[in-house]
Amino acid sequence: MKLNNHASGHHFLQIPGPSPVPDRILRAISLPTIDHRGPEFGALGLSVLAGLQLIFQTRHPVIVYPASGTGAWEAALANTLSPGDALLMFETGHFAALWHKLALRLGLRPEFLALPGTDAVGLPNGWRRGVQADLIEERLRADAGHQIKAVCVVHNETSTGVTSDIAAVRRAIDAAKHPALLLVDTISGLACADYRHDQWGVDVSISGSQKGLMLPPGISFNALSPKAIATSRTAHLPKAYWAWDEILESNKTGYWPSTPNTNLLYGLAAALQMLLEEGLDNVIARHQRWAEGVRAGVHAWGLEIQCTDPQVYSPVLTGVVMPAGVDADRVRRTIHERFDLSLGTGLGKVKGRMFRIGHLGDSNDLTLLAALAGCEMGLKLSGVALAGSGVQVAMEFFASRPQRAAMPAAA
Amino acid sequence: MKLNNHASGHHFLQIPGPSPVPDRILRAISLPTIDHRGPEFGALGLSVLAGLQLIFQTRHPVIVYPASGTGAWEAALANTLSPGDALLMFETGHFAALWHKLALRLGLRPEFLALPGTDAVGLPNGWRRGVQADLIEERLRADAGHQIKAVCVVHNETSTGVTSDIAAVRRAIDAAKHPALLLVDTISGLACADYRHDQWGVDVSISGSQKGLMLPPGISFNALSPKAIATSRTAHLPKAYWAWDEILESNKTGYWPSTPNTNLLYGLAAALQMLLEEGLDNVIARHQRWAEGVRAGVHAWGLEIQCTDPQVYSPVLTGVVMPAGVDADRVRRTIHERFDLSLGTGLGKVKGRMFRIGHLGDSNDLTLLAALAGCEMGLKLSGVALAGSGVQVAMEFFASRPQRAAMPAAA
Amino acid sequence: MKLNNHASGHHFLQIPGPSPVPDRILRAISLPTIDHRGPEFGALGLSVLAGLQLIFQTRHPVIVYPASGTGAWEAALANTLSPGDALLMFETGHFAALWHKLALRLGLRPEFLALPGTDAVGLPNGWRRGVQADLIEERLRADAGHQIKAVCVVHNETSTGVTSDIAAVRRAIDAAKHPALLLVDTISGLACADYRHDQWGVDVSISGSQKGLMLPPGISFNALSPKAIATSRTAHLPKAYWAWDEILESNKTGYWPSTPNTNLLYGLAAALQMLLEEGLDNVIARHQRWAEGVRAGVHAWGLEIQCTDPQVYSPVLTGVVMPAGVDADRVRRTIHERFDLSLGTGLGKVKGRMFRIGHLGDSNDLTLLAALAGCEMGLKLSGVALAGSGVQVAMEFFASRPQRAAMPAAA
Amino acid sequence: MKLNNHASGHHFLQIPGPSPVPDRILRAISLPTIDHRGPEFGALGLSVLAGLQLIFQTRHPVIVYPASGTGAWEAALANTLSPGDALLMFETGHFAALWHKLALRLGLRPEFLALPGTDAVGLPNGWRRGVQADLIEERLRADAGHQIKAVCVVHNETSTGVTSDIAAVRRAIDAAKHPALLLVDTISGLACADYRHDQWGVDVSISGSQKGLMLPPGISFNALSPKAIATSRTAHLPKAYWAWDEILESNKTGYWPSTPNTNLLYGLAAALQMLLEEGLDNVIARHQRWAEGVRAGVHAWGLEIQCTDPQVYSPVLTGVVMPAGVDADRVRRTIHERFDLSLGTGLGKVKGRMFRIGHLGDSNDLTLLAALAGCEMGLKLSGVALAGSGVQVAMEFFASRPQRAAMPAAA
Repeated sequence: MKLNNHASGHHFLQIPGPSPVPDRILRAISLPTIDHRGPEFGALGLSVLAGLQLIFQTRHPVIVYPASGTGAWEAALANTLSPGDALLMFETGHFAALWHKLALRLGLRPEFLALPGTDAVGLPNGWRRGVQADLIEERLRADAGHQIKAVCVVHNETSTGVTSDIAAVRRAIDAAKHPALLLVDTISGLACADYRHDQWGVDVSISGSQKGLMLPPGISFNALSPKAIATSRTAHLPKAYWAWDEILESNKTGYWPSTPNTNLLYGLAAALQMLLEEGLDNVIARHQRWAEGVRAGVHAWGLEIQCTDPQVYSPVLTGVVMPAGVDADRVRRTIHERFDLSLGTGLGKVKGRMFRIGHLGDSNDLTLLAALAGCEMGLKLSGVALAGSGVQVAMEFFASRPQRAAMPAAA
Repeated sequence: MKLNNHASGHHFLQIPGPSPVPDRILRAISLPTIDHRGPEFGALGLSVLAGLQLIFQTRHPVIVYPASGTGAWEAALANTLSPGDALLMFETGHFAALWHKLALRLGLRPEFLALPGTDAVGLPNGWRRGVQADLIEERLRADAGHQIKAVCVVHNETSTGVTSDIAAVRRAIDAAKHPALLLVDTISGLACADYRHDQWGVDVSISGSQKGLMLPPGISFNALSPKAIATSRTAHLPKAYWAWDEILESNKTGYWPSTPNTNLLYGLAAALQMLLEEGLDNVIARHQRWAEGVRAGVHAWGLEIQCTDPQVYSPVLTGVVMPAGVDADRVRRTIHERFDLSLGTGLGKVKGRMFRIGHLGDSNDLTLLAALAGCEMGLKLSGVALAGSGVQVAMEFFASRPQRAAMPAAA
Repeated sequence: MKLNNHASGHHFLQIPGPSPVPDRILRAISLPTIDHRGPEFGALGLSVLAGLQLIFQTRHPVIVYPASGTGAWEAALANTLSPGDALLMFETGHFAALWHKLALRLGLRPEFLALPGTDAVGLPNGWRRGVQADLIEERLRADAGHQIKAVCVVHNETSTGVTSDIAAVRRAIDAAKHPALLLVDTISGLACADYRHDQWGVDVSISGSQKGLMLPPGISFNALSPKAIATSRTAHLPKAYWAWDEILESNKTGYWPSTPNTNLLYGLAAALQMLLEEGLDNVIARHQRWAEGVRAGVHAWGLEIQCTDPQVYSPVLTGVVMPAGVDADRVRRTIHERFDLSLGTGLGKVKGRMFRIGHLGDSNDLTLLAALAGCEMGLKLSGVALAGSGVQVAMEFFASRPQRAAMPAAA
Repeated sequence: MKLNNHASGHHFLQIPGPSPVPDRILRAISLPTIDHRGPEFGALGLSVLAGLQLIFQTRHPVIVYPASGTGAWEAALANTLSPGDALLMFETGHFAALWHKLALRLGLRPEFLALPGTDAVGLPNGWRRGVQADLIEERLRADAGHQIKAVCVVHNETSTGVTSDIAAVRRAIDAAKHPALLLVDTISGLACADYRHDQWGVDVSISGSQKGLMLPPGISFNALSPKAIATSRTAHLPKAYWAWDEILESNKTGYWPSTPNTNLLYGLAAALQMLLEEGLDNVIARHQRWAEGVRAGVHAWGLEIQCTDPQVYSPVLTGVVMPAGVDADRVRRTIHERFDLSLGTGLGKVKGRMFRIGHLGDSNDLTLLAALAGCEMGLKLSGVALAGSGVQVAMEFFASRPQRAAMPAAA
């Protein structure tokens, strides 16, 4: 991507977020900024807040922060917890680890559950599978005194390409008869993978703008449950910017207590309209089909996928593990330089061992085939022996499996 | 402003921020989002960080937050203070009051100094004048035990149109030989009014994107001093999202630890280029001239200006006090409905008593004359008796006082 | 207007076309170019052609040319006339004169009727009044052999600010029982002034994109009558690019025989939607009100309006005559340099004697007051003695005469 | 391409023009329209006219028309010829045939030379090879009386993908010692294929905006020779809109006699800057490399290329001939519906027999591989038996043959 581009064609941004932003949204965010206290703004605010509820599948309030996803992580903790509270977090990958670190910085006492050990190729077992609800249940049963105030899990682990079963986590908490809140990071899951805030009994869902919502980064969210709201009234970690109370009050008329991110809200309104016009089921099916095509390509190359449990393959991204001795970042660099294609780097414990192909946002079959072609050429140029052509297999997949047409709303 | 506009001409956004955003910036923020870990991004980051130093007039680091100005207020306190710390804050208006309330919510012990009493027309004295450095000096001298950890003042009080003398506050602290940090909110002052972070000995300057920088809201700043950075290492209010340490580390190569607000950074790069091309001195002179023209108009109407001390008239906005019995918000509404002109409302203790004319951002003489014309017509339609035509007097001012041409850099 | 603008506010483009283009249209023309032979294009084409009929108030075809208005002048002649044909044209100003010259270049024999003489201030009488239908009738009656094949008049003369009575011209032709075609240039009249192709019996209406349609220049139009179409089949001036026959055939399915101006057609679709949403009656009333306000201002200055017949004042622009000895172009230059306001120059026989204020396109009351303020300041700076403040009088006009609200379609 | 697009990714516009327009150009054309008589405009005009000379490789004037390429065809003839003049035109394909038809409509006497016969698969021989300079020389030698006033050939025949040798045509005319003018249509050749107006002795070069210049359609060009200009002074086809004389006069200061296509000129300025920054040699090499990769793909499919002479393969587009019995337009429709990829249809004598892949404009290796993937899938879905994978072979080509980096200007 050259910001002052020559006639070099579109950059292929196939990282797992920020996702490629549709033109319609880029245009929306460049509308003139308006008075955030004027009448037009209130109408915009109410419309955006209502649309977000449909996306989170909740009847309860959704908080919008002018902040990145990290801010929304902090907000979820700051509103529901008190200094020194114990938490149960589950290590699914790099982003779970970052959230754990953030909890530590806030003066909380997070316990970090994980599947132990590494596998045959030296990758941590816990980074190749989803949240283990049975381990959570077991741990909560052992917490007779209910010291643990919240269970924190990542829905779609962006660093690995694993989409955990959140309903199972809720069942585990209920089975343990434990009162802990359930806080879920669905930053990269929302509006790509199936996500049901109310039905799954989530207390705080955390999300961001730059993944399935297809916006640039800069807005993030907390979807709340009544229990979370009630808890926030007594929790006493210091909170001001993140405090839900004043925001909830202002939001009733479509405004915010501090200056909102007006132009990104224009984009959010456009994104919500696009997603709801298409229909959330169609949106999710679209990402699943893309993911299946990409995985077919990776399999054809004879390379391993980071996620080893097909039940929890991510519809958002696919982690591609390099053969021993191949530096994944060198491969990525070659692909970027030669084919103007950006891929996600390996993060934390898998740095250099894998790269990530994002298949979300403003894409289509040909975009993904182009991305696979860029990977295939780059892998070969990097000396990686491939079992076959991933592009060829993915073409067969996409040609033989047309995307389900969007259903009319009344059907 | 109609978001789906008919051929109704440009909306006149004359609130004291968000300011009218130049097309060049709106276009910049709609460029395709890029990989915030890729090589192009690092170059963008370094360029923006360097430019910000020139605007804050500092050689020390400037922190960029994907957050509104309220977040940057919180960040300044969270990085430099510990639970229960005492602060000295000065009430210049509504935004000083909001910052004070935020400090309370964070568990700090802010003392709120103010000029006492109300004046002849019932407006609070402290909301019509600047920070009183002598009162601060007096209070600090009384704090023999140095309990007060920071002095917090607002540079340009957006709710009143008063630009305080920050150098005088620094002199007061020094005169009192007090070690308190000096934290200054220049959210609406920066890049409109003269502001010198290093020369004035400010420890943390807080600013935002949507005023003199002419961006949409969504980015805010902390400019630091070495003393502030040193203090942040031991201050122990919980901090994660706002924590300077990781940001300073990442910023060395032009990146951020969490996802930055990429598209607003495009806009920021454009804004910095525009301001530096024009020259900061010219930018400030431009706002001063506009303000003088607008005040000439208000005087001609025979209406009072909120700021009663000509030494501290704001170059950014002018507060216009309504005669007794006139509801300023009704006047504003008439003006908005009839002439598509947005003005700032009276906030807090002056609600309904005054409105505010912003004269910042993407404006020119004719824009301001149009705004004065809208006010003049709306005041008359609202039954406010005017002594004369403000438009007429402002035309004479603008015609007789051409704007100083931008000087070539080498001159 | 600086193409790489500093924060200098919007340029005030108050020439009588190109008119200020609404953002909505500028955004539309920057959508990606599509295949002009693909299915989406046909739908666009049909929609645009249908909308144009509503604007021209005709049930007959409208031809769209990728060409400026001059091209559409040539097209009207080339399709309906044969080498050496006699025409009757009427001199209303510079554009009538240019069209006359074009007819000469095409090898036609145009006769140029005009009011004779100059008036007290030395300006040509014919350039201050509309088409004189009685002179046309008289001339046609004298043409017993029907040598004259077409009568050519300008509806809204952009060089003077006079809007002629086209219905009267039609009555004159009919009264003379003359078979000549009626060709009318409404380049700057359409979608500002009342215009009725069918009702007024016009055979070819010529218009362009950059005036009332609020587009950039580059598209122009011929609206046809059945008689014009029939005539075109036998007329034998050479024609290819301008030939109606192939275009009419292709247009049936929404396409064009040669490559159409795709991106300007996007803008045209947006413009038609805006105008039809507002309602053509409201559009015309809006321009009339603006014109009345501007004329009130000019009268208050004590300056003469170019058009001396109030029955034919143009709703699109107002010509302002300078006192003897004042170079109108020097005044315009001062206004442009000091206040970033563009005005129309005096053209042809009135060069240096007057300037023109456009009041069309994306404007509103404050825009026009700003334009008047720029003129008033510039006139004074140029040493022109003014009788009073035009801005003051125009403010009174606009304040006391609210714009009629757009009526709901069903009312 | 959906004008109100869902998150369906970018449309792949791989027709041989309009080419995919770079964002930078789309943004340029949406800048506010300025006064085409103001000082900023003159600077824009001069800059664009100077840049065009570099692209046409000429020191002589280039005329810019607000018109499509068809208009520029007409202009070239209208300025240089008189009623009834004889021309020699050469049939290379559909666009040569359209130009021939246009000459007939203008009342000229064009003779249409062609290679006779059809080949084994029933396609016309002349539509698979370039201009035959020997046939032209022979015909001119036979024209002892010099009745033929101009030789008209198409440089890059957009309907077939053949780029003729223009220098050879010039040599043929010279060898025949014939004074005829050489008029060349390089509408789709300019700024993709090598083109040298002066060096090749072309008298009028005709081009358009929507191909190698990467603009939307709406502007077209005549590049002139001194001989062409001299001829235009006596040629007496009627001409007004197209007449060079007034345009040449106005252009001296950067203006036009009639209203220019301002916003497309903004785009043209941007396009010229992009092309000249890259360097014309690099631009041409880029298109040649793309074309070679695409042809490698077509060969791998075992399909015939429309052009049968490798010396004159077009760098701009490749015609792909369908096996007997396959309806090329049905294949195109399938590809468009399933993969949102637009291809060029077969035109005129090859309708239904072939489709055309454009490889010009804002593209890159991955874009072209995506286009080939769309074709490959669509061909298979249409039941066309392929010999192998064109995508696979093209990947090998693009991977093994990196694009030459742009050379620094000074090297």
